[in-house]
Amino acid sequence: MNIAATRPMPQVTTGPLPASRKIHIEGEQHGDIRVPMREVALHPTSGEPPVVLYDASGPYTDPSATIDIKAGLPRLRERWIAVRGDVETYAGRHVLPADNGFASGERLVPEFPVRNTPWRASNGKAVTQLAYARAGIITPEMEFVAIRENLGRKAAKEALIRDGESFGAAIPDHVTPEFVRQEIAAGRAIIPANINHPESEPMIIGRNFLVKINANIGNSAVTSSMEEEVEKMVWAIRWGADTVMDLSTGRNIHNIREWIVRNSPVPIGTVPLYQALEKVGGIAEDLTWELYRDTLIEQAEQGVDYFTIHAGVRLHYIPLTVNRVTGIVSRGGSIMAKWCLHHHRESFLYEHFEEICDICRAYDVSFSLGDGLRPGSIADANDAAQFAELATLGELTQIAWARDCQVMIEGPGHVPMHKIKENMDKQLKTCGEAPFYTLGPLTTDIAPGYDHITSGIGAAMIGWFGTAMLCYVTPKEHLGLPDRNDVKVGVITYKIAAHAADLAKGHPAAQVRDDALSRARFEFRWEDQFNLSLDPDTARSMHDETLPKEAHKVAHFCSMCGPKFCSMRISHDLRAEAQKEGLEAMAAKYRQGGDLYMPVSDTTEAQPGE
Amino acid sequence: MNIAATRPMPQVTTGPLPASRKIHIEGEQHGDIRVPMREVALHPTSGEPPVVLYDASGPYTDPSATIDIKAGLPRLRERWIAVRGDVETYAGRHVLPADNGFASGERLVPEFPVRNTPWRASNGKAVTQLAYARAGIITPEMEFVAIRENLGRKAAKEALIRDGESFGAAIPDHVTPEFVRQEIAAGRAIIPANINHPESEPMIIGRNFLVKINANIGNSAVTSSMEEEVEKMVWAIRWGADTVMDLSTGRNIHNIREWIVRNSPVPIGTVPLYQALEKVGGIAEDLTWELYRDTLIEQAEQGVDYFTIHAGVRLHYIPLTVNRVTGIVSRGGSIMAKWCLHHHRESFLYEHFEEICDICRAYDVSFSLGDGLRPGSIADANDAAQFAELATLGELTQIAWARDCQVMIEGPGHVPMHKIKENMDKQLKTCGEAPFYTLGPLTTDIAPGYDHITSGIGAAMIGWFGTAMLCYVTPKEHLGLPDRNDVKVGVITYKIAAHAADLAKGHPAAQVRDDALSRARFEFRWEDQFNLSLDPDTARSMHDETLPKEAHKVAHFCSMCGPKFCSMRISHDLRAEAQKEGLEAMAAKYRQGGDLYMPVSDTTEAQPGE
Repeated sequence: MNIAATRPMPQVTTGPLPASRKIHIEGEQHGDIRVPMREVALHPTSGEPPVVLYDASGPYTDPSATIDIKAGLPRLRERWIAVRGDVETYAGRHVLPADNGFASGERLVPEFPVRNTPWRASNGKAVTQLAYARAGIITPEMEFVAIRENLGRKAAKEALIRDGESFGAAIPDHVTPEFVRQEIAAGRAIIPANINHPESEPMIIGRNFLVKINANIGNSAVTSSMEEEVEKMVWAIRWGADTVMDLSTGRNIHNIREWIVRNSPVPIGTVPLYQALEKVGGIAEDLTWELYRDTLIEQAEQGVDYFTIHAGVRLHYIPLTVNRVTGIVSRGGSIMAKWCLHHHRESFLYEHFEEICDICRAYDVSFSLGDGLRPGSIADANDAAQFAELATLGELTQIAWARDCQVMIEGPGHVPMHKIKENMDKQLKTCGEAPFYTLGPLTTDIAPGYDHITSGIGAAMIGWFGTAMLCYVTPKEHLGLPDRNDVKVGVITYKIAAHAADLAKGHPAAQVRDDALSRARFEFRWEDQFNLSLDPDTARSMHDETLPKEAHKVAHFCSMCGPKFCSMRISHDLRAEAQKEGLEAMAAKYRQGGDLYMPVSDTTEAQPGE
Repeated sequence: MNIAATRPMPQVTTGPLPASRKIHIEGEQHGDIRVPMREVALHPTSGEPPVVLYDASGPYTDPSATIDIKAGLPRLRERWIAVRGDVETYAGRHVLPADNGFASGERLVPEFPVRNTPWRASNGKAVTQLAYARAGIITPEMEFVAIRENLGRKAAKEALIRDGESFGAAIPDHVTPEFVRQEIAAGRAIIPANINHPESEPMIIGRNFLVKINANIGNSAVTSSMEEEVEKMVWAIRWGADTVMDLSTGRNIHNIREWIVRNSPVPIGTVPLYQALEKVGGIAEDLTWELYRDTLIEQAEQGVDYFTIHAGVRLHYIPLTVNRVTGIVSRGGSIMAKWCLHHHRESFLYEHFEEICDICRAYDVSFSLGDGLRPGSIADANDAAQFAELATLGELTQIAWARDCQVMIEGPGHVPMHKIKENMDKQLKTCGEAPFYTLGPLTTDIAPGYDHITSGIGAAMIGWFGTAMLCYVTPKEHLGLPDRNDVKVGVITYKIAAHAADLAKGHPAAQVRDDALSRARFEFRWEDQFNLSLDPDTARSMHDETLPKEAHKVAHFCSMCGPKFCSMRISHDLRAEAQKEGLEAMAAKYRQGGDLYMPVSDTTEAQPGE
């Protein structure tokens, strides 16, 4: 049966960003590596080479790629995984009606047309990037991310701007595959790369690399569809999302996820507890370890790259939340708290954590240890419940590491500015420098509708302090499900926060883009300014609102000040004028005298005010 | 002639914000003081009193006030000024065709219908709030702002949350009129209050008070009209702008400003140089001290409350900008640089600074010493040009203080996060703790179209560090003239930044609003959550996009998670359940044992996973 005949296929946004083309840099150690980057061409008058940018958008922005949503993306890592000789294919778990919330007929999202036999580790082997790193192996994934992080720059060849305060991070001038291996081996970075998601382009999350961002998508019981979610994923990575979490909670969770994973070039994260809860009809107390375990395997076989697991919500921490202003605001946290309290027993996630590790180890699913007790308001920030859970996350990190599993740690939430750094410091210390992955934090509670901004402030700061990945917050936070436009605004806001953090940390490649854009601005190369910006479409359309003509794209002013008042234009006039007599000579004379170039009394020009 | 008959009068937005009413708190020392505040009523089920908020919106949000744009606002400070006995009325300067750029006929914006005879200090007296403060006088303006800053709370009666890091600021638990006087006398705070703007409701700018924000409006040679600008002013203060700068640069500057000042309850700032340049046809080198001086008097008579004066752009600093990526980006700075270079002589603003002080002192126009050499790109941040100018601003501050003039200092600009604090520290030290008034700073250059966010990050941080007033940046920055919607987005973003700063500084009144909103959120009082937010309209409409029915306004979930997954709902279930057997008792037991409430082996419930 042809699926496409019964249902329209998802339409996704394709095509390059303005003035951009996809380039690929090849590997040296591993010949079949082709690392994608985006090259932005500048106007010939600039006399500058193209600017190379990190590119998370996958084949969708490559005009030479054939996009076929029902076929999925090319399985570029398939051979890398196969040749390691430590995996086996097997029949895999049977998809059950409960996996899709018993949706049927027209309400059932169709299965993805291609079914791949899943892989798993053979003979209890560890197939994680951490295991390889510890064994001294530089995998293709490691070389891939090394090339990716360098943004096309060669080692020590360019004059690097190393101006920043990194709070103890150790970002190298140039990232080598061996550096990547060491960081992963030390647990300071992860490459989320499930062996059943060979379509993914490897990326790294760690304090000594570029700050990454995650975008959440997912339908809810109330709204949204598969078609929308696939497009949201493509849309989110178009604007720069480095990973995507599918937080779907309604019916059809399994099938929607399959469509997303098969078409995603970025790692996909989930909260398996959401699906598990659907399977028991939303009754938290009916959750069981077996059902949860089965859900982990279901998702691991599909290729989910990281699992949020709220194993730090322990029974005896729950009373610590009783006097909070906003109680428990993590969905996973509240579900587990309810389970624990109902059964009067310890969380099954905590008790079975070692078994969870064994599953993750067999597929290389990374842990994102969830902060189920994160504060949901300024009043609850940095409280006993939050930090008690963090201590447990530190303990679980050691257990996961002992089993060769990759780990990152989730962080808050709502935190006023003066309490942000304490979060970072405590996380680094408690969790052995495992990467921190934070939601915001929101720096005030009073702006629903603008929480991308309240949280963008906190995200930039905590990114500077050392957070490796920032989970975006959209304008709809607290209010509703983000639509396509909210996703874009959330992603752009978080790209700003991540880049501001890279700049402040002194990342050697960060300021290149700012400088290129600022030179374009100063030289009135409007098109270059648009093309180098995070959102060329919006920049251009805002400019064109008042000055739409083509001629205005080369105008030496904008509608903000008009021609007579444009400071940059005046600066140019001034520079030109000064050059007539040599500004440097003038400068020397000024500096010498430390005072005026020409005393007032010497001037022959009449000054009416004198 | 009835102006209204020949031209439609400006329509401005009036009416209260949702669930809000205007209240007035009366003075104790000065009987005719009535300080406006906004009281937000909460749902009866909350059992909470109304929340009192700072209210910059003036009579426009008061249904009992009669708004008549062609009559202007009531002159509430008129009597206060008159009874001091140190001012005189006089004919005032004649309005010249050049004041309006020689606009005539239909292109001429009509004169404001009412002409008030201007006031000035009699017999060379100092009529500034600084002079009164130094003389030990508590003016009605000082008592007004003291009441205003307390937001209705009584001294030491309430349990105050004093949780913050203020970097040496000294915010009192309760603001007294005497404290205000001391802060002004010390130069640490200003009340911009031109005696010819008696319509203004006094407000204070200083590190030991609530962080304020400014919104820029103004037409340009390319676009916009008087009607739009008056409405922009009303619109900006509706959402919380504490002062408004009129940066108009086209024709009709004089007349547009008169309409704005007469209808503005907030202080109005200008850059007099812009109008002066219009008067010489945009030729910077044709500027003269006399023409500039005349413009200052013109604007002082109209009631402009603070002047941005770029007197720190000295001739011998200009060469320091020559190797910058973006040269000089301040309009005022570039105009003065051009003048200096052309004439090969020192800035007339610098040379005549004492005379400028004498004008300001006669009307109580506050100084906003402009940062004409502020960095316009990340590359130029904190450079020699910027800090050379800052040193001069410190020198000018002393001169202004010696003449009883109120002073604040303008700051950058584009600054990466790690260089922000240095700006604040240097400013405090160099300028004797005069209030800092910063534009952003923008923390990256790469996001035109989103510079309210790139700068909101920097604004929140520098506000925390001690900046007294934040000048907003709209999404149109670098691209075009902000429209009504951009103004709102800019104001809300900066209210977020200012409030986040107040929270982090530990302002005793700040967290009240966060807590009230978070309690509303936790208790699913949706209407209260909307009404307490910075932008109730946007919060409500985002919620209603997916859940529009009235019933959903009391629903215990939103479309984000749906009913089954709402963590707050689960938290409530959990709390209710726990209370059956006394959560406190459970908590005690947990803490005692430090471990499980009930060992796994004791439970009689079958656990399938065991």
